Amino acid sequence: MSVRHFLGGDALPHTPDHDRGLAYGDGVFETMRAHGGVVHWWPAHWRRLERGASALALTLPQQARVQREAEALLDGADGVLKLVVTRGVGGRGYAPFDASTPHWILSRHALPPSPPSEGVSLRWCDLRLAVQPALAGIKHCNRLEQVLARAEWRDAAIHEGLMRSTEGDVVGATAANLFVLHDGRWTTPAVDRCGIAGVCREWAIDALQARQARLAVTEVEAAEAVFLCNAVRGILPVARLGARQWRPHPQVAQLRRRLAAEHPAFATEVA
Amino acid sequence: MSVRHFLGGDALPHTPDHDRGLAYGDGVFETMRAHGGVVHWWPAHWRRLERGASALALTLPQQARVQREAEALLDGADGVLKLVVTRGVGGRGYAPFDASTPHWILSRHALPPSPPSEGVSLRWCDLRLAVQPALAGIKHCNRLEQVLARAEWRDAAIHEGLMRSTEGDVVGATAANLFVLHDGRWTTPAVDRCGIAGVCREWAIDALQARQARLAVTEVEAAEAVFLCNAVRGILPVARLGARQWRPHPQVAQLRRRLAAEHPAFATEVA
Repeated sequence: MSVRHFLGGDALPHTPDHDRGLAYGDGVFETMRAHGGVVHWWPAHWRRLERGASALALTLPQQARVQREAEALLDGADGVLKLVVTRGVGGRGYAPFDASTPHWILSRHALPPSPPSEGVSLRWCDLRLAVQPALAGIKHCNRLEQVLARAEWRDAAIHEGLMRSTEGDVVGATAANLFVLHDGRWTTPAVDRCGIAGVCREWAIDALQARQARLAVTEVEAAEAVFLCNAVRGILPVARLGARQWRPHPQVAQLRRRLAAEHPAFATEVA
Repeated sequence: MSVRHFLGGDALPHTPDHDRGLAYGDGVFETMRAHGGVVHWWPAHWRRLERGASALALTLPQQARVQREAEALLDGADGVLKLVVTRGVGGRGYAPFDASTPHWILSRHALPPSPPSEGVSLRWCDLRLAVQPALAGIKHCNRLEQVLARAEWRDAAIHEGLMRSTEGDVVGATAANLFVLHDGRWTTPAVDRCGIAGVCREWAIDALQARQARLAVTEVEAAEAVFLCNAVRGILPVARLGARQWRPHPQVAQLRRRLAAEHPAFATEVA
């Protein structure tokens, strides 16, 4: 069984009726890399979950219990672990006060294919991200913008799409954060107006002493090096964005080696 | 049993695992008033569902089948019928291409209490609606903004909250559309940047030959009369918004009589 459901402390066979996650996307989630049954970045994922739950006034299940169930589900394997926490069962209507026992779902998934060694190819998405400071940064379950953006292309040679906000700022990829290099300094878009504060982004900000700032399309295209990152795939060097191409950059290679040294799941990917 | 699930043409016992409605709010819904087992506004609800599904490239189930199952569930009763249609079961990741068979859920709910005869009381919500033209007007399942706005107050004497966009325009209530009267002309906020194009709103625009326009806070407060509307509760005269009060207005009373004459569910509410 690769999916397990719980309501508060009780195991459930499936999603309950009137779940507010399904009704309104009223929940948060984490997508985590597991290696040998262990989620190396668990503390950072849980911290982000807590920040999101706090912003949405959602109750989280007990961390120790979730971790125990996650370990049981992973059973020593490598893979992707997804955790969804919804507000639970509520009546019809937006008022969240009836729902107080969270519904949480753990699921195990295969690892995505390794990124091409020469780097990933990107496109610009047409769909713009709305500016909503109250939800910015949170990995919540209202993801129609990402679904629509990811539906813009089917070409398997394009690995990801970059998204801009309705104000024109570059925010990130549909499922990864973005870093760009100018004059020896790394910048990643601020996520205080839209976008997601990724766990690998947090690691890379710290590792690179990167700046968080608003970023223009021209600044991406003029960058000396570009990479994407997320907690499942690690650091993804970018080789191409439309007609713009980048050669492998030593600072990106160095960062990948540093990640491999710190996070065992990524050790095998770097020669 | 007051909830029924289907995947395409097949009955299901419950929500399937990996449902994209729960993962991403990747779906649309309708909340309908049933009277004697009949949803009087069914054609308008289905048209709106089609518009939303088209914008999201979602497959809808067969209308005739949904209608048949809805009638069976209602079984001649009065109440609220909710229909949710999600993109169905998909893998991990935003790309929607794997999911092609919709999961649809019918549920029956009790009628909400009748509105107070003197009119409803409103407040201004602090949370602003993000501007997202790609999703505006659609009754999709990404509703965290409404959940957060509705969580702003618990005072049962306040019936609804008015929401503004991040640009400052008045958009509507958390679960109803808004109409305001100035110099004999009715206006309702345009919903091309955010907000929901309600089925009762559509009826009222037609009945009143109302204008759709951007609306400022000062224009609401200066209005001669104000009402809210939705497909479950019909026309709700507004008596109060913060310190501002309105007396019953003959044009609102006249509109309620007209709705009562056209829609049997609302006939009993107007003396």
